[in-house]
Amino acid sequence: MRTIVVRNIPRITPEVASTLAKHGVATVHEAQGRVGLLRPYLRPIWPGASVAGSAVTVLTQPGDNLMLHVAIEQCNPGDVLVVACVTDNTDGMFGDLLATSLKARGGIGLVIDAGCRDVRTLKEMGFPVWSRSISAKGTTKASLGSVNVPVVCAGTPIQPGDAVVADDDGIVIVPYRHAADVAAKADARAASESVKRSRLASGELGLDLGRMREGLAAAGLEYFDELPA
Amino acid sequence: MRTIVVRNIPRITPEVASTLAKHGVATVHEAQGRVGLLRPYLRPIWPGASVAGSAVTVLTQPGDNLMLHVAIEQCNPGDVLVVACVTDNTDGMFGDLLATSLKARGGIGLVIDAGCRDVRTLKEMGFPVWSRSISAKGTTKASLGSVNVPVVCAGTPIQPGDAVVADDDGIVIVPYRHAADVAAKADARAASESVKRSRLASGELGLDLGRMREGLAAAGLEYFDELPA
Amino acid sequence: MRTIVVRNIPRITPEVASTLAKHGVATVHEAQGRVGLLRPYLRPIWPGASVAGSAVTVLTQPGDNLMLHVAIEQCNPGDVLVVACVTDNTDGMFGDLLATSLKARGGIGLVIDAGCRDVRTLKEMGFPVWSRSISAKGTTKASLGSVNVPVVCAGTPIQPGDAVVADDDGIVIVPYRHAADVAAKADARAASESVKRSRLASGELGLDLGRMREGLAAAGLEYFDELPA
Amino acid sequence: MRTIVVRNIPRITPEVASTLAKHGVATVHEAQGRVGLLRPYLRPIWPGASVAGSAVTVLTQPGDNLMLHVAIEQCNPGDVLVVACVTDNTDGMFGDLLATSLKARGGIGLVIDAGCRDVRTLKEMGFPVWSRSISAKGTTKASLGSVNVPVVCAGTPIQPGDAVVADDDGIVIVPYRHAADVAAKADARAASESVKRSRLASGELGLDLGRMREGLAAAGLEYFDELPA
Amino acid sequence: MRTIVVRNIPRITPEVASTLAKHGVATVHEAQGRVGLLRPYLRPIWPGASVAGSAVTVLTQPGDNLMLHVAIEQCNPGDVLVVACVTDNTDGMFGDLLATSLKARGGIGLVIDAGCRDVRTLKEMGFPVWSRSISAKGTTKASLGSVNVPVVCAGTPIQPGDAVVADDDGIVIVPYRHAADVAAKADARAASESVKRSRLASGELGLDLGRMREGLAAAGLEYFDELPA
Amino acid sequence: MRTIVVRNIPRITPEVASTLAKHGVATVHEAQGRVGLLRPYLRPIWPGASVAGSAVTVLTQPGDNLMLHVAIEQCNPGDVLVVACVTDNTDGMFGDLLATSLKARGGIGLVIDAGCRDVRTLKEMGFPVWSRSISAKGTTKASLGSVNVPVVCAGTPIQPGDAVVADDDGIVIVPYRHAADVAAKADARAASESVKRSRLASGELGLDLGRMREGLAAAGLEYFDELPA
Repeated sequence: MRTIVVRNIPRITPEVASTLAKHGVATVHEAQGRVGLLRPYLRPIWPGASVAGSAVTVLTQPGDNLMLHVAIEQCNPGDVLVVACVTDNTDGMFGDLLATSLKARGGIGLVIDAGCRDVRTLKEMGFPVWSRSISAKGTTKASLGSVNVPVVCAGTPIQPGDAVVADDDGIVIVPYRHAADVAAKADARAASESVKRSRLASGELGLDLGRMREGLAAAGLEYFDELPA
Repeated sequence: MRTIVVRNIPRITPEVASTLAKHGVATVHEAQGRVGLLRPYLRPIWPGASVAGSAVTVLTQPGDNLMLHVAIEQCNPGDVLVVACVTDNTDGMFGDLLATSLKARGGIGLVIDAGCRDVRTLKEMGFPVWSRSISAKGTTKASLGSVNVPVVCAGTPIQPGDAVVADDDGIVIVPYRHAADVAAKADARAASESVKRSRLASGELGLDLGRMREGLAAAGLEYFDELPA
Repeated sequence: MRTIVVRNIPRITPEVASTLAKHGVATVHEAQGRVGLLRPYLRPIWPGASVAGSAVTVLTQPGDNLMLHVAIEQCNPGDVLVVACVTDNTDGMFGDLLATSLKARGGIGLVIDAGCRDVRTLKEMGFPVWSRSISAKGTTKASLGSVNVPVVCAGTPIQPGDAVVADDDGIVIVPYRHAADVAAKADARAASESVKRSRLASGELGLDLGRMREGLAAAGLEYFDELPA
Repeated sequence: MRTIVVRNIPRITPEVASTLAKHGVATVHEAQGRVGLLRPYLRPIWPGASVAGSAVTVLTQPGDNLMLHVAIEQCNPGDVLVVACVTDNTDGMFGDLLATSLKARGGIGLVIDAGCRDVRTLKEMGFPVWSRSISAKGTTKASLGSVNVPVVCAGTPIQPGDAVVADDDGIVIVPYRHAADVAAKADARAASESVKRSRLASGELGLDLGRMREGLAAAGLEYFDELPA
Repeated sequence: MRTIVVRNIPRITPEVASTLAKHGVATVHEAQGRVGLLRPYLRPIWPGASVAGSAVTVLTQPGDNLMLHVAIEQCNPGDVLVVACVTDNTDGMFGDLLATSLKARGGIGLVIDAGCRDVRTLKEMGFPVWSRSISAKGTTKASLGSVNVPVVCAGTPIQPGDAVVADDDGIVIVPYRHAADVAAKADARAASESVKRSRLASGELGLDLGRMREGLAAAGLEYFDELPA
Repeated sequence: MRTIVVRNIPRITPEVASTLAKHGVATVHEAQGRVGLLRPYLRPIWPGASVAGSAVTVLTQPGDNLMLHVAIEQCNPGDVLVVACVTDNTDGMFGDLLATSLKARGGIGLVIDAGCRDVRTLKEMGFPVWSRSISAKGTTKASLGSVNVPVVCAGTPIQPGDAVVADDDGIVIVPYRHAADVAAKADARAASESVKRSRLASGELGLDLGRMREGLAAAGLEYFDELPA
């Protein structure tokens, strides 16, 4: 494994980030064709946050947070730090000191396929983290990894600079070059969902709204008044 | 697998539902003899809700929420939608649009052995969900399942119309024909526990309240002042 | 397995307990050399609590809470009840009645490598619990275990009287004889971290604060402007 | 929970059992419409066995094998003992002594949603077991359960007397009243698969055998010579 | 998600495949710098096989094996079919009929991040499979996916045509353009390990062979005759 | 964490080791009162081995096998190497080179709460390993740990020199000072089980052999000819 740091990465615009964060993970995921979700074992350490930013990626050894220190230097305002690990690990690689430093650089959140600690302080700071576990397990600083290389995090490939959208539903990645387009599609989808929501709230059924009845009958769905023998 | 929808199911009365919801899962579970709990991997997506209602059951294919649309039409006010899946699945089969529709029908909650999304909105709506996971993973609408057939959900068999009681402790099922009886037993148990609580709060020990000392000695429990070699 | 109860155990002083609770799990874990953490699958049932006290230990059979009743009699004000099980189990061995009794004895919290129930009431009581699961599953009272013997709980050995420190980050054990010393080291570490936090908040990098750059270069870390081929 | 033993259960005929065992789990599962499988975490403790017989069901407390002794008395030649537990448990409830006793009664196999031990001896005896775990953990004999009541084992409901079919692919349950019919359907399916196997072995494609091409095109599947941009 | 089939992919030469298979997963993984392993939850269904070939990739819906039929047509002699799923799934998507067809096309093995069935027959056929589970659960053929697109399988990105090396230790992916180079490095590593093995077998210690003693002392490792207090 | 190596440990005699190995894990576990088992997630990498020896203990960092090299120097003929890790890890810390070296020192087996690789070669060598996973994931050699200190491995505390007994049922630890006594008790238990086995094989029931009928009736077990309503 080469151990390198890449300084320059593409970044999405603040407008695109703002649109993606506003619509949130479920809508963005649908808008880009139901791809790009991270596995649902990554969970927010406190509820209610919603962020979108460009990914600064980190690849670490298990139980070692040395490269997080290296990565923070590469962060710009609006970035989301994304940490993958070469093997499954739950140790607490990130806590309030690193959050203080990352926040000072303008970083707006952390997605880590490992553990996080100092979670009460992080909540008080309003610093959002999505992690695999909450663990106070301290880490070493012994082995190199890489910063701003392509990684796989929680099952999904991420390129440095890709848009990371995260909220209470999880995390979705939008490739850098599609971010503006997906943001526009998310706007459209949200508008369409708003109409649907009103109709459903008034009692109209999804079966009718989505014109599903004919297809269901054709597929062989049978209705009975009582459970048949 | 037959793919059918059954229109008529028995339903518990609002009074029984109200009593069961008031006492909650732990008390109802004890009152009916320590049976009927769903496995504890089903968790509420937000804390504090407590519901009881008649089960409208759904059996789905993994990653496919078509039958949830079908099922909502079969819901009456006070019903709880219960979703089982033919195989383990964590996808986000239910979100704010389906919740809007289910709520418009009078549905009061969802128990799903799969995933749920739009959890912040669901919390804002005050719509309670107990699920296996939180996941934004979108689903297809390609394959039939069934509505109001007997299912096994999170390890427990459920008949359509059975009482579903759910709160922060999990979910317990009370068979339809026992629901009124169990509600009465839960009343009795709660009264008895209230007395116990007062005595324990005043410093009396469970060992004495439950007259356990003699049995412990007979079973061979030994007391020492210090750890014996 | 011998089934015994030991009446006398050492206990940490209220001052040491107070210091350990103030600094919390992550700091205490680091202060004693990164050892003593319980596995992170034990989680608080409600957020925000922070306790430290002497361990009263219990060893139980799966699905049987008889020994918790026995153990509560052995608790003094300031103690933390620590429950290990002879085999993996998630049943709800502890609920609001036992909490009422334990609180009446002065117990300040529970750490249990099994399940807990009545979690909403426990939260209302302000009684903190760290458990493996939340489950309403009722237990029997059929089989003996032991109280105040050495146990392994969530992967970590605990002697009766050891200091138990627990907060939102998890649980760490400090051996009784080291508790005062570790409390002092935690004071020192917290002071040092406070300085670091200020410097990081002002934009100084961990790389510089920790003088890591030279070591990184020596280890072979390479910087590139763009991802090399 | 009532604690009872039921003496009389229906039993499938040896001919039906023989047919089901010959075709095996995958074919029988398909023949009855893709239902009735136990969750795949139950695995054979040694490969190569294939059995089918009537279920004698047992419901036990965790870590307690008392009811297995009770159940063996209820077994007839050709029966399969099926053990469910009131809560998740991996303890070694069954070993070579119980296998010797069960074999002496004519029992032909064990399906247990808990643990098994003495696995080398069981293999030497040629006694097949499907279990959740292999564990030497000894059990108590303290608490009652039931024999020959309906149970849920590894997610699937089982009535006493239902046909249990088990091989290297897992376990499938066929309800008693459908067993003969499903055996006949399995015969038919096996014959049809034999023809398909020959055609596929000769190079014919499933796409053509199953006439799938038109449907795929209609559904929108596109073919490209190279990965499109 | 676009649903496409790509017909032309690059393929490694038989010589490279043969070299990679001979050295096996552990050596190849080390030779390419400790990257490219699939998560260890994928296990061979029978022990002793060792294969290397070019990846024909498939992306499927959960519980749906339609695209495996599509993919087999795209296989050439020496290929390894690699199946990823859009969400976690354990269903038995592959059995002896598909294996017969794949073998008739010259396919030499299957890697599937889902389930497999008919495992006894597959072993008798000598057809090797690495899967997440063994499950007889039948699948539908309702939804499209893709063939020969980039996928992530068990945590590792795979391009169509990449070398797949699999044996009892698991699976490693070598990017197509590095395959010949890695095969050569594996040759060199195997030669070097052979020398080491002889020296270790004769009693020489790894500490001396690897000249580790000085580094250990410098890092602070202390030797004691007895456990210090 | 202090990083030390202890040179002198107690060791059980070859006679005691031989007796323990002969009786195996289940019998030894029962003979010492049902304590000392490691969690069942540790499994043999090949079936059929049965060993007993003195524990040389190792504590490692995740993903780092440096201390295994250090530990092998401390092994004597008849020893079993026991590897614990400071945090959960599945990497392949041990393979055929280390096995060659350990075997040359007289080591007879490995118990590791992490991963193992080169499993086919290890089987060919007849070198037994019990591990948490099989994984080719290579490790670093960057961080110190300790050798011959007390560890917790798979949930059980182990002192250097304790007897390790391992076979297809798992692993049990017998404290050094009890090893001879437990070996004698295992002899007695095996003799008693042999008598029981004969009686059970001849059709006598465990219910009668263990005189359980009276206790079952007293506890309230009821027999019915048919399932009561």
